[in-house]
Amino acid sequence: MRMAELSAESGVPVATIKYYLREGLLSAGERTSPNQARYDEHHVRRLKLVRALLDVGGLSIASARKVVDAIDEQTGTPHHILALAHHNLGGTAEHVDEESRRWALDAISATAQKRGWKFGTDSPAVVSLVNVLCSMRRLDHSQLVEYLDSYAEAADRIAEVDFSTLDGLTTIDDVVEQSVVGTVLGDVMIAALRRIAQQNASARRYDNDG
Amino acid sequence: MRMAELSAESGVPVATIKYYLREGLLSAGERTSPNQARYDEHHVRRLKLVRALLDVGGLSIASARKVVDAIDEQTGTPHHILALAHHNLGGTAEHVDEESRRWALDAISATAQKRGWKFGTDSPAVVSLVNVLCSMRRLDHSQLVEYLDSYAEAADRIAEVDFSTLDGLTTIDDVVEQSVVGTVLGDVMIAALRRIAQQNASARRYDNDG
Repeated sequence: MRMAELSAESGVPVATIKYYLREGLLSAGERTSPNQARYDEHHVRRLKLVRALLDVGGLSIASARKVVDAIDEQTGTPHHILALAHHNLGGTAEHVDEESRRWALDAISATAQKRGWKFGTDSPAVVSLVNVLCSMRRLDHSQLVEYLDSYAEAADRIAEVDFSTLDGLTTIDDVVEQSVVGTVLGDVMIAALRRIAQQNASARRYDNDG
Repeated sequence: MRMAELSAESGVPVATIKYYLREGLLSAGERTSPNQARYDEHHVRRLKLVRALLDVGGLSIASARKVVDAIDEQTGTPHHILALAHHNLGGTAEHVDEESRRWALDAISATAQKRGWKFGTDSPAVVSLVNVLCSMRRLDHSQLVEYLDSYAEAADRIAEVDFSTLDGLTTIDDVVEQSVVGTVLGDVMIAALRRIAQQNASARRYDNDG
């Protein structure tokens, strides 16, 4: 299909598609003349995915590109591909002093031991967790660390459900895309469900007060 | 204290503090001369909070301002204040057609009924959830809706832990700040823990394969 049809099919404006092409979020079509290229269903699907990662998942262009690259670089075992995809989600950079970092890593280690988790101190998820814990500490909310075990237990249950969603998928393509979509959009879904659950817990708790 | 001391105390550069003042993220100091103002511990605390919301929580300036305003507008019951604070977190705007919206709301209603939740269809959390579900559907991952109950159960457990973190706090100020910090930074923390849990589940599952 031509660019105009690709736009109609995916619901993404032509100017936006061109922007994604320039940013490497979408692979080039097959050139049919100096000014024209042909696109296929793979492009439609990828456009929808990019749209979802950016608009609903809230990823930056750079993060979305890394995710898309991870999906395309399908080398190695599924575990390796999943790790690669995860590697590019999260992990904010912020200055944390050495003493705080060690305090946070100690807390994470204690929780990991209870849950039977292995973790690399340089993995983006752990860097992100260190940042959050240090930030809570700076705000004098370091008592939140006492609840890390409970949150980790909930995270283990979520990860179990995450893996159930992969059951029945047969191709690596499907497993990887489902895993990425489930992880990025899943974060937004879990945050939304958490708000609804909090509001209900809050109503039960405080409406009795007054 | 003067601006320079406020900067030293909070670790936030003077130029950034001035930016936050202009953006309404920090209240003005007490004017002592046409070119000088005096700041206090409240400003130090607020600066750290704003920093955490923006850098670690990943909020936009506009969202952070709404959160800060919600903390300051402490009228009504704790439930009302919490609702106000939550009201400003999440809820992305995106076009969803009426049929998809109804499909998503039906799924949310079914889950809410099982969990004993009440919800308003216009609340930001529900709008956000509708967007995510419709986005999954557009990506042909609508089967994820089958797992909504399981994710909602995990969200209820998280909300329980969230409320435990408020135990022992005595002032409304503390409850509201803890709730906001716990919600915004908590989302990042839960996402990070979910990644670590996924990586461990993935290693267990796939390393056996090959």
